[in-house]
Amino acid sequence: MSRMVKGLFADAPDDNFYVKEFERRAVAPKDVDIDIKFSGICSSDIHTKRGEWGPTDFEVCPGHEIAGIVRAVGAEVTKFKVGDRVGVGCMVDSCRACDCCKVGEEQFCQQGMVPTYNGYYKYDHHPEKGNKTYGGYSTGIVVDEAFVLRIPDAIDLDKAAPLLCCGVTTFSPLRHFGLQKGQHFAVAGLGGLGHMALKFGVAMGAKVTVLSRGTSKREDALNLGAHDFVDVKDPEAMKSAAGSIDFILDTISAKHDLNAYLSLLKLDGKLIVVGLSPELLDVGVFSLVLGRKTVAGSLIGGIAETQEMLDFCAEHDIHPEIELVSADYVDEAYDRVHNADVHYRFVIDVEKTLK
Amino acid sequence: MSRMVKGLFADAPDDNFYVKEFERRAVAPKDVDIDIKFSGICSSDIHTKRGEWGPTDFEVCPGHEIAGIVRAVGAEVTKFKVGDRVGVGCMVDSCRACDCCKVGEEQFCQQGMVPTYNGYYKYDHHPEKGNKTYGGYSTGIVVDEAFVLRIPDAIDLDKAAPLLCCGVTTFSPLRHFGLQKGQHFAVAGLGGLGHMALKFGVAMGAKVTVLSRGTSKREDALNLGAHDFVDVKDPEAMKSAAGSIDFILDTISAKHDLNAYLSLLKLDGKLIVVGLSPELLDVGVFSLVLGRKTVAGSLIGGIAETQEMLDFCAEHDIHPEIELVSADYVDEAYDRVHNADVHYRFVIDVEKTLK
Repeated sequence: MSRMVKGLFADAPDDNFYVKEFERRAVAPKDVDIDIKFSGICSSDIHTKRGEWGPTDFEVCPGHEIAGIVRAVGAEVTKFKVGDRVGVGCMVDSCRACDCCKVGEEQFCQQGMVPTYNGYYKYDHHPEKGNKTYGGYSTGIVVDEAFVLRIPDAIDLDKAAPLLCCGVTTFSPLRHFGLQKGQHFAVAGLGGLGHMALKFGVAMGAKVTVLSRGTSKREDALNLGAHDFVDVKDPEAMKSAAGSIDFILDTISAKHDLNAYLSLLKLDGKLIVVGLSPELLDVGVFSLVLGRKTVAGSLIGGIAETQEMLDFCAEHDIHPEIELVSADYVDEAYDRVHNADVHYRFVIDVEKTLK
Repeated sequence: MSRMVKGLFADAPDDNFYVKEFERRAVAPKDVDIDIKFSGICSSDIHTKRGEWGPTDFEVCPGHEIAGIVRAVGAEVTKFKVGDRVGVGCMVDSCRACDCCKVGEEQFCQQGMVPTYNGYYKYDHHPEKGNKTYGGYSTGIVVDEAFVLRIPDAIDLDKAAPLLCCGVTTFSPLRHFGLQKGQHFAVAGLGGLGHMALKFGVAMGAKVTVLSRGTSKREDALNLGAHDFVDVKDPEAMKSAAGSIDFILDTISAKHDLNAYLSLLKLDGKLIVVGLSPELLDVGVFSLVLGRKTVAGSLIGGIAETQEMLDFCAEHDIHPEIELVSADYVDEAYDRVHNADVHYRFVIDVEKTLK
């Protein structure tokens, strides 16, 4: 039997959010029904709601950083039981059959993964085929167990929420592109993604430098554990850091001069882009060939890797810095994220405030 | 005792070449004195002579694709003897002490490698410290044995010449970035670099596709051994090739839309740039993150790797397609290279025509 939940919806880019009741499907044999406790606010939510990545298919209920408690499970669910602490990230389904799905890279599903909101269930195997997806700014969600994560007891649920996107987006490229202990790692941009990258880099044994425009974030960077800070607008600082870095994780989501950052890399250095700038980035060929440098992209992470990240956070006592807000604060929170006025992630207190 | 040789010189970007006698240094203990037989014409020569990579330090005698015969050796030379078939590429010295030099990546010498022409000897260990370098458009050259290559008997000297730059520039990235047997490899641009990349790809057991603007090079590509050809201006052809390629070697030396090429790559596909476009290339972040794709650069190769390439060519019967020209044809040859009217490399018959 389906159930009604409450959600925060928007109908147009400039409209405010409003609360609406809507239906979640009846629990199918492989489904996990979750009472959502906390939901992170990701920049993607804002880009989508504001139509900055192309036209959005309104109405939209965003949210793909979900933490909650299992309230029911389907008859065939084996991994979860009622009362478990669980999370849901950016995906709620994929084809399950392609080469990417088979190796646990569901985010690159060749038939297309189904996003947690603003997408459509499209696979025959899914009980809601044809229906639109609605995200985590809601009091409950029903998700196939294959896309549900276990949240370790060591991580508070409110702080767990942002890990489901922000955490895995920064963890995955460090693993995939091989950040090594003792390497010089730099984080470009100290926002939601950047502050997680900083913590992962420290936990992985790298020397961590934060690259930021201006010096306003220097103190924060060092307080968060960074070993060094470079103001990229300071020509002297840039000159003395030139050629000193092995690996840059670029979390900046606006147009910026990649060549300046590439100049900081050593021979065979890598700059991995995870910030989603809607504008094209200019790359000079000489910036690449002199030093055989790499620019690559990375997109969230697979389900197994997301679990690995959560377990890594529990083991290393890593969690995001959050500001817990109420459901009626989301519009203002969006403006503050847009103005980079957040330290470092807003999380909606769904259980207590979404009514 | 120094000796006089003849060289082709230019004094300004728009001037024609002229023949002049100049001095080569006396053979020092570690030097190899070479009678140059053939010298390839590389696009870099043209960019330099025409001042397209910034102001050129005239006068200039270009040429870094040199093949010849040893006429004398210094007292401490151990690797070569009079009569040996030898080559010289893009470098004639490096610091010999930095991390890059120590691992045989002299092209990335942290103190700066000394280019074969239009550079200055700058290291204390070198007998010509302070002097300018003059290249292979000349009848003789004296080079430290550490920067001299052995040309296998199986390779004709005229065809060996272009391998010293063009060959190693395309061979090195395939080795370094790991082109695998059975992979789908594509060559973007079918010129001097591209046609060598094609041959190396085939010899390494890849399926090789040539990517070219228009269809004029289709027949040539297939005759040279390519398995497939895609006209990048044909939207249907591009659509059907989308997501099918593991590795692209991009030899295009003018501005082009990298995102179109990136769309052809599979998950984790790589596009390695070796063509030296003076203009910035636009890269879309989504072109990188969707499929976790890599754009990287590569620059010639180290000395040991250049020898490995020459030996590979001998073993696999690989050689460039050349058009042998006389020394008085170089100005016209430059115009033809500029108009992409060469199949696929001009080589100057130095011994017979530089008088």
